[in-house]
Amino acid sequence: MAEIEHVRHTLAHLLAAAVKDAYPHAKPTIGPAIDTGFYYDFDFSGGEQPNDEALKDLQKRMKKLLNVWTEFTHEEVSADKAREVFAGNQFKRELIDNLEKEGSTITLYTCGHSTSSGQGGFTDLCRGGHCEHPNKEIDTDAFKLDKVAGAYWRGDEKNPMLTRIYGLAFATKEELDAYLVQREEAIKRDHRKIGAEMKLFTSSPLVGAGLPLMQPNGMIIRKEIEDYLWSLHKNKGYSRVWTPHLAKEDLYITSGHAAKFGDELFRVSGKEEKFFMKPMNCPHHMQIFADNQFSYRDMPVRYFEPATVYRDEKSGQLGGLTRVRAITQDDGHLFCRVGQINQEVSTIVSIIKEFYTTMGMMDGYWVSLSVRDADKSKYLGTDEVWNTAEGALEDAAKSNGLNYKRVEGEATFYGPKLDFMFKDAIGRQWQLATIQCDFNLPERFDLSFINEQGEKERPVVIHRAISGSLERFMGVMIEHFAGAFPVWMAPVQVRVLPVSEKHTEYAKTLMKHLQQYEIRAELDDDDSLGKRIRNVKIQKVPFFLVVGDEEVANETATLESRAGKVGARPIQKICEYISNQIRQKKDSSPDIDALIA
Amino acid sequence: MAEIEHVRHTLAHLLAAAVKDAYPHAKPTIGPAIDTGFYYDFDFSGGEQPNDEALKDLQKRMKKLLNVWTEFTHEEVSADKAREVFAGNQFKRELIDNLEKEGSTITLYTCGHSTSSGQGGFTDLCRGGHCEHPNKEIDTDAFKLDKVAGAYWRGDEKNPMLTRIYGLAFATKEELDAYLVQREEAIKRDHRKIGAEMKLFTSSPLVGAGLPLMQPNGMIIRKEIEDYLWSLHKNKGYSRVWTPHLAKEDLYITSGHAAKFGDELFRVSGKEEKFFMKPMNCPHHMQIFADNQFSYRDMPVRYFEPATVYRDEKSGQLGGLTRVRAITQDDGHLFCRVGQINQEVSTIVSIIKEFYTTMGMMDGYWVSLSVRDADKSKYLGTDEVWNTAEGALEDAAKSNGLNYKRVEGEATFYGPKLDFMFKDAIGRQWQLATIQCDFNLPERFDLSFINEQGEKERPVVIHRAISGSLERFMGVMIEHFAGAFPVWMAPVQVRVLPVSEKHTEYAKTLMKHLQQYEIRAELDDDDSLGKRIRNVKIQKVPFFLVVGDEEVANETATLESRAGKVGARPIQKICEYISNQIRQKKDSSPDIDALIA
Repeated sequence: MAEIEHVRHTLAHLLAAAVKDAYPHAKPTIGPAIDTGFYYDFDFSGGEQPNDEALKDLQKRMKKLLNVWTEFTHEEVSADKAREVFAGNQFKRELIDNLEKEGSTITLYTCGHSTSSGQGGFTDLCRGGHCEHPNKEIDTDAFKLDKVAGAYWRGDEKNPMLTRIYGLAFATKEELDAYLVQREEAIKRDHRKIGAEMKLFTSSPLVGAGLPLMQPNGMIIRKEIEDYLWSLHKNKGYSRVWTPHLAKEDLYITSGHAAKFGDELFRVSGKEEKFFMKPMNCPHHMQIFADNQFSYRDMPVRYFEPATVYRDEKSGQLGGLTRVRAITQDDGHLFCRVGQINQEVSTIVSIIKEFYTTMGMMDGYWVSLSVRDADKSKYLGTDEVWNTAEGALEDAAKSNGLNYKRVEGEATFYGPKLDFMFKDAIGRQWQLATIQCDFNLPERFDLSFINEQGEKERPVVIHRAISGSLERFMGVMIEHFAGAFPVWMAPVQVRVLPVSEKHTEYAKTLMKHLQQYEIRAELDDDDSLGKRIRNVKIQKVPFFLVVGDEEVANETATLESRAGKVGARPIQKICEYISNQIRQKKDSSPDIDALIA
Repeated sequence: MAEIEHVRHTLAHLLAAAVKDAYPHAKPTIGPAIDTGFYYDFDFSGGEQPNDEALKDLQKRMKKLLNVWTEFTHEEVSADKAREVFAGNQFKRELIDNLEKEGSTITLYTCGHSTSSGQGGFTDLCRGGHCEHPNKEIDTDAFKLDKVAGAYWRGDEKNPMLTRIYGLAFATKEELDAYLVQREEAIKRDHRKIGAEMKLFTSSPLVGAGLPLMQPNGMIIRKEIEDYLWSLHKNKGYSRVWTPHLAKEDLYITSGHAAKFGDELFRVSGKEEKFFMKPMNCPHHMQIFADNQFSYRDMPVRYFEPATVYRDEKSGQLGGLTRVRAITQDDGHLFCRVGQINQEVSTIVSIIKEFYTTMGMMDGYWVSLSVRDADKSKYLGTDEVWNTAEGALEDAAKSNGLNYKRVEGEATFYGPKLDFMFKDAIGRQWQLATIQCDFNLPERFDLSFINEQGEKERPVVIHRAISGSLERFMGVMIEHFAGAFPVWMAPVQVRVLPVSEKHTEYAKTLMKHLQQYEIRAELDDDDSLGKRIRNVKIQKVPFFLVVGDEEVANETATLESRAGKVGARPIQKICEYISNQIRQKKDSSPDIDALIA
């Protein structure tokens, strides 16, 4: 079978052929394969242009054409010849002019030359990369034209607006269907939608785009995640530090971030001095390390700081919690000796495993062990140190039983790393945790500790983040749980529903019990009981307690979780059960049997 | 008796007279009363100038002159006459020229005209405010020349450098002595010195002045304070929120902070937009409130956020934790109805009392009830609302038994407030907590909730801070406790000292027990036991445990606190005792009896 990229690329040609059939005035421009299929941009000016409705007809035409798309032929041509073939298409002409300027080979690919419609096949300016035999290799049930959108020629808003037609394409119909289901589900789970409904966060035009503000409900989730992360570190030799949100330009010139981040840096002007808002926390942490003269006995030194960094993304691309200008990294930096990398990485891996097991995301995870490629001139540090560090990361990956792949050429210039990919509840993959070795910054900041010989020795730095950033991770969690958060994370953990007014006083007593157990409980005595129960379900509150005559008489409450009804239980037993679920960070459903038993 | 300001001002004249006696070439310039005494600036150019040693002689001269300083005479003179009197003194001439330009009256004050030395008394350009009879009203044991320093003429570094002589002056010798003791003690307690010794915080020239970085030890103290503050709020209806550290200029133009803070604001430039780093959190919290349409049933709404704000102070004035460009306010904003102010203020007062009782600072506190003065045009809001708010604050002050003084004219333009002044262990007064009513910002941001009539009603905002800011408060605490922090705040709570190597294993077991109780313990087995015990005391660790043969045999440890030796006790009893002291936020000393009993 053909590679899926070849299928997608071929389908882009096929789409262009179908469009030319149906809209002879259309000027095809460019059409690449993308992650979920392909698109093609056309200029329809001076004639009719297709809307979403017209896609069905185009799709039929594509399927019909495909029958005669038996194989591609290609020919190398001169720029003049190419300009002749695409006469009247100023977009293709611009591409050809550029290829000519670069001195690149110009090739034309043609397919469908024996179509029954009598047309002479469809020829496009192209570098190749198609199916060999489209009619045999493309499953007509595994692609689908998707939507029509606008797009500027070459992505530049100063250029003319073109019409982009998107198609979905996968290897099999099953994959296409799965993708469509996932996409549908993703829309329902959109964290921006749920975030607004549950009042988790907001934005303000006065504050600015990409600078979300946490509402109380969102802050509960964020703080639970942050506190959980710290609880996983505090008994493992990590110390908290705190650093300000800006620093003089010198710090980032020394670290190299000024050059790396360029105009993504927010520039800060004071009366006398110039600063940058911090794009990363590492340089600040280096300053804290450097203020001490550590000895080998003190190593490793481990700093932990959930700290907000700022990068100036274009305002048009910003939204929700995942496309922001402010991210709060759950950042940590370890300063250690090369021989200590393995042990330290193992500890971090154990934290990552515990964290993502709690989040229900360990199924289907994988790890990229990103190492150097053959061109060693691109990387900083000696072969010996690289071999040790790559070896240490791989050993740690092995001894911790990680599902890892060695990916050559994916290391950063400053060292190798382990990048953790996790799948959410609807199968989407997210790169979240990372563990990176760094030989560069300790050099740039001339860091040292005193070794056994009384000499200065350079430490290695390990950068690590478990959740990545609190904002993005929270966005992922909202979509992963579709708002039905596990009880420890839920803004409201229990809702208390008195059957009628005469049970309200008892409900208030119950509230006090719950609060004594530090359970976040809410009393709801508005409206009818039925409506209040519906609200609990719509709002995905993990537990609710109904209290009526019988419950008052027996000093019980009738418990129901998202998993179903449990029944009347003594107040204390309920409090202990829920508080236990919270402390153990369990979801509300799995252990319900323990309470029923 | 004369007012102390008059005494101080008279002493400035007397100093100038003594200086003219001893250094006839000296040109007196200006010499005001200050909080602790007085100073006078002289130009000694072209001749000898006094150093610290010479102050003794000058002081003798002052005391001698004072005998004949029986009373001041004064005369109103023309500018020409004044210029004649001070001929050759270009500084006095500049002052006279300015007075003439302003059209102000020019007066000369003379004293000591009948000195036995035969001099014709000392005349100075002055607006008055002296003792009537200096020789009777000034206690010669209650003033002391203090030090010589440099100062630019009129405080402008472009002007010539003058010589400033400082004097201390109080109403009585006892007050002077007390001040000298306090000052001596303050130098020992300087938080910058203790901060460096205990590795609490640091600064970095690469990060910038006034931007301290918290070392792990300092972060323990800071986090304990922050967590304690939140624990006092979380069961009182407050919700945590989170907001970013910058906002578009529009936010602060709307709030009025852009005009108020002017060039103290850090300006942030992005690729497309301009921002300010936030100088206050209120405008952000208004945006969070405004994102909800609250009803009267939801009121009051209470937000809590320990949030860092930035102001661009001049770099020359920066240092330690008290003169900084970044402060983390333990900020909170309440949105309520006018009728709810009293109850809300009472809750805040109860939090302040609990917090400062724990800190041992409730002795000698006082509260300024800052209200309007007669010129009502300066203030925003109707008489009715002001009367209610001032009344509510005063009622709350009364019903909570606060030691308050009504201070007219000290209200802000946006509302009345309660400012809390606390004394530290050496008697210095600090303004720390504040509760402020605000009628202005809700108006500017057009905030509302829906009242019982279904109409929009404007809430009042209460700004409150308990510690003021975490950095400054931490600086005050370091000096208040002189580094001997109560056990709950101490970076290291317990140190374990094995008598010899053979007791190290048992010491490690003991460490595990302590850690199970979440006690921050450290094992020290370097050097001799004597030296290690001395280190505990120098480093002011609240408790230490010595373990030798007897302790190993009996499964005990010998406990000593900063208050003294307790003796051998079973491990569990020690752990429970210390953990209890921590949980109850007690100091290590007072309850030691409980353990001895």
